[in-house]
Amino acid sequence: MPSYTAPIKDIQYVLHDVLNISGSDIPGYADLEPEFTEAIFDAAGQLASEVIAPLNVVGDKEGCTLENGVITTPTGFKEAFEQVKEGGWPGLDMPEEFGGQGMPYVINTAVGEMFSAANQAFTMYQGLTHGAASAILVHGTDQQKATYLPKMTSCDWTGTMNLTEPHCGTDLGLMRTKAEPLADGSYKISGQKIFISAGDHDMSENVIHLVLAKIVGGPEGIKGVSLFIVPKFIVDEDGNPGAKNGVSVGSIEEKMGIHGNSTCVMNYDEATGYLLGTEHKGMRAMFTMMNEARLGVGMQGLAQAEAAYQNAVIYAKDRLQGRAVTGVENPDSPADPLIVHPDIRRNLMDQKSFIEGARAFMLWGAQLIDQAHRSEDKDADGLISLMTPVLKGFLTDKGYEATVNAQQVYGGHGYIEEWGMSQFTRDARIAMIYEGANGVQALDLVGRKLATDGGKHVMAFFEMVKSFCKENGEGDMAEFVDPLKAASKDLQGAGMFFMQNGMKNPNAALSGSYDFMHLFGYVCLGLMWARMAKVSLAALENGTDDAEFHQNKLTTARYYMARQLPMTGTLLKRIESGADPVMTLPAEAF
Amino acid sequence: MPSYTAPIKDIQYVLHDVLNISGSDIPGYADLEPEFTEAIFDAAGQLASEVIAPLNVVGDKEGCTLENGVITTPTGFKEAFEQVKEGGWPGLDMPEEFGGQGMPYVINTAVGEMFSAANQAFTMYQGLTHGAASAILVHGTDQQKATYLPKMTSCDWTGTMNLTEPHCGTDLGLMRTKAEPLADGSYKISGQKIFISAGDHDMSENVIHLVLAKIVGGPEGIKGVSLFIVPKFIVDEDGNPGAKNGVSVGSIEEKMGIHGNSTCVMNYDEATGYLLGTEHKGMRAMFTMMNEARLGVGMQGLAQAEAAYQNAVIYAKDRLQGRAVTGVENPDSPADPLIVHPDIRRNLMDQKSFIEGARAFMLWGAQLIDQAHRSEDKDADGLISLMTPVLKGFLTDKGYEATVNAQQVYGGHGYIEEWGMSQFTRDARIAMIYEGANGVQALDLVGRKLATDGGKHVMAFFEMVKSFCKENGEGDMAEFVDPLKAASKDLQGAGMFFMQNGMKNPNAALSGSYDFMHLFGYVCLGLMWARMAKVSLAALENGTDDAEFHQNKLTTARYYMARQLPMTGTLLKRIESGADPVMTLPAEAF
Repeated sequence: MPSYTAPIKDIQYVLHDVLNISGSDIPGYADLEPEFTEAIFDAAGQLASEVIAPLNVVGDKEGCTLENGVITTPTGFKEAFEQVKEGGWPGLDMPEEFGGQGMPYVINTAVGEMFSAANQAFTMYQGLTHGAASAILVHGTDQQKATYLPKMTSCDWTGTMNLTEPHCGTDLGLMRTKAEPLADGSYKISGQKIFISAGDHDMSENVIHLVLAKIVGGPEGIKGVSLFIVPKFIVDEDGNPGAKNGVSVGSIEEKMGIHGNSTCVMNYDEATGYLLGTEHKGMRAMFTMMNEARLGVGMQGLAQAEAAYQNAVIYAKDRLQGRAVTGVENPDSPADPLIVHPDIRRNLMDQKSFIEGARAFMLWGAQLIDQAHRSEDKDADGLISLMTPVLKGFLTDKGYEATVNAQQVYGGHGYIEEWGMSQFTRDARIAMIYEGANGVQALDLVGRKLATDGGKHVMAFFEMVKSFCKENGEGDMAEFVDPLKAASKDLQGAGMFFMQNGMKNPNAALSGSYDFMHLFGYVCLGLMWARMAKVSLAALENGTDDAEFHQNKLTTARYYMARQLPMTGTLLKRIESGADPVMTLPAEAF
Repeated sequence: MPSYTAPIKDIQYVLHDVLNISGSDIPGYADLEPEFTEAIFDAAGQLASEVIAPLNVVGDKEGCTLENGVITTPTGFKEAFEQVKEGGWPGLDMPEEFGGQGMPYVINTAVGEMFSAANQAFTMYQGLTHGAASAILVHGTDQQKATYLPKMTSCDWTGTMNLTEPHCGTDLGLMRTKAEPLADGSYKISGQKIFISAGDHDMSENVIHLVLAKIVGGPEGIKGVSLFIVPKFIVDEDGNPGAKNGVSVGSIEEKMGIHGNSTCVMNYDEATGYLLGTEHKGMRAMFTMMNEARLGVGMQGLAQAEAAYQNAVIYAKDRLQGRAVTGVENPDSPADPLIVHPDIRRNLMDQKSFIEGARAFMLWGAQLIDQAHRSEDKDADGLISLMTPVLKGFLTDKGYEATVNAQQVYGGHGYIEEWGMSQFTRDARIAMIYEGANGVQALDLVGRKLATDGGKHVMAFFEMVKSFCKENGEGDMAEFVDPLKAASKDLQGAGMFFMQNGMKNPNAALSGSYDFMHLFGYVCLGLMWARMAKVSLAALENGTDDAEFHQNKLTTARYYMARQLPMTGTLLKRIESGADPVMTLPAEAF
């Protein structure tokens, strides 16, 4: 069975050595000294390794079962969920007035990586609750906040997000779920929602559904969509779950992975709902916390990659097969371990250089979100909004690829469920799809985010990379900065191509949108690796007592620069081929 | 539920327009007129669509079950297998003297694609039998041939290949299964084999296992491995299955996919075995038909991609979601079909340009195999041996990628098992692993095949591409030949790098072996697309009455040249970065 150990040292390195969080003037960051965060991560890491991770395979095998309308989660989930709640983990970054710990989002993200890596299906129960609670926090009335947030902060009640219907996912304007206004100000909600993660289960006293629906008589299409709070049990005057509401589970979806999460078809039959936020502004309310939600999914891509990588490394060191081409390394054994073989190393280095770069990118993104919210910094908000589709799309695509590579290290055993490597790929696959399929992320990036505020944020990004390269391009840093410069030039070239061609023909830009999302991602990870190289070179220069650690960072940075970053050249060529190759074939010829 | 239609027109185009098979002087090819092959493909395609494909989902859901030592295949498999047998399909390219139809391998390959696309797990039962029968055909005594081949040609008896043991897959020198010689010339075989596809089941009267084992007292390691025929039921003097042999099923492996195939742990307990071929030359005997076997697995990658692609296209045309960015295309509907969106087209064109290029490459490879065997052409043999790891590794990697892309078109529905798209990815995943994991293919290519006969075959390949470019580089062909030239230059650059660095340091070559396998694959598909472009340009020039078909080929060729082939530049850069990025990190730092 696979194991998981939280990569605390690497997380600490990014947060403190690279991002210097406790030196930041973002409110709440001054407290985040290395000793303090380490204590948090030690506790979270232990819970992840010892309690949550062992249930990963169990959840995959057993799945959730629906009997007589009641869903049972896999063996052990309930007890583990109690431990997570007791530790106060679900409320880590929720406000103290609702029982949370008021920590910055960056800490929540670091802990989230651990829990997700340990068991994505399990961790989604609190993840969805967090998302729903955040929407109530921003858009709820004082009474709604008082009613729902304390219980959701503790995860005594869990939450869900209800968007998709059988005939519409991305295009929510086609939605059919209806809300009929009642005299008392509440609504009757009727319709069917599908793909509802954590839709119902036996781990919480109540489930608070956030449901998108159209108020009868409102505007057509997406402009008539509102957001509603629809509790499974209507909360009585004492704040306790009371009468059963008109919401029921239609079925549990049979999925490729994340079997431990109860993904439901939910039926709303004149269920009582309460408007959250403003009438007809449901999309805005649902997507208020979009940057966090999408970064959170990008994090899942990274997290599954990390878990799969750890197990691939264990196997590569353990499994004896063949001899090193440069001479026997293990003369006392009948064969050398897999890790002597160049192609196994190539595979593992691909994973490692992605994971560590992605972690830095993700935590930087989380810091920007804190900066945007806690410091009300509009530039930070613009930059993270620009990078959010990249964090979601690139990290989940490359994270999935990493899990496939990790599985490959196991040879035939990678295909046998008993070894657990298949689960990492099957679970990681969903992150490319939900919370906006990656093609939609690319569309958001190229069709919307690039041009936001007159292109100000993408220009700021280019300027940031340029300044970094200018300030750090000499001496030992040249080997890291030169490839970053070249890649950044490819990214700017792509942006230029879109500017010159996208106005005349939007398809010329959108045909290359997916490539651009990846190109952007490669450059972001390149920037992070260059920043890490700078930190580790300085540490070595200053006589660190952990020279090996920093040397290894430099080695991994070199791998990234030599073997990952050159992808930008191919991506630029694809982009510059424009619309014709993509758009010419008649639809009937496919 | 997914559907499947055999792409007969595309297959005919490759065989006749591109490869001109009936004009070839390979023995048996003169009969392969278009009308004749079309009749075969029509019959095979109908069987594939109507009988085999509908069982694909059934096989995935039900899997095989083992009870009291007896394996039951999924509902309907037995009846469908009877229909396959009645049609004589398993013996299509087996010699007539054993009941086969004596057709060239190229026809078998084209039909194999259809059956594999329809249902890979099902088709493996005859595929394994074919492999085992081929080994007996080449290495068996007259008596062995007479005993086994008629029954295996008809698939009344099926076959298996037993290589892997729990502790060794690639490194078979570590094998522990033993063969003890008996006075009557037979052997007692004892040991455990794992991952035995079609290891046992209820569709055949007997199972003929080919088992690698070490004869007691023989040489150490791989040089002491021999191949044995071990029938499930020992064949009596009348040629009928008689006494039960000492072979039993330990368990059925729980796998990520191909659930309809009974992948078994097989236990041999003093089972009676008969030496096949020469003592201690078991590896050679097992791998005699290696080129066919590996091309056959490459074909599976292509086949799953084709099946997944067909269903992605159906969904992309059917599903209404969003509006075309250039203006509403479907004013009478609430939304436009997915296929109007550039990124959906980009996704589908990626699949299409891969699939059609790969099919041409595969059928060309099959033709070379026929040329090598039927015309005893050593150059053809050298060329196909060189390209075999590329056919296996590149087609399965890219085929898998295509199935993942096809699944992505479905959005959330792609993750729900009910829709069947997940199965294509789960089934396609195994082809990257079995019959030599793709990393081992890359090692075979760079560590062995490049240097075979003093590098003669790779030079011949370069020369072939060069001549083609020289002869066809002008006029309308320039847009196809120029990118091919550039890509071929990258491939030669990589070969040059290996020559200059690989002797001093084998790791410098092996670190880039995987990239080289892909680089070679991209160039091969580029060559095939250039050849197809030439054919279709000529057809249009000559006033074909199917102008649309040929125009669409040119459009797809342009896509491949513009958006797939540029990958060679990145691959060359990775290769030229050599051993250091891959080999520097200490093993303990992973």
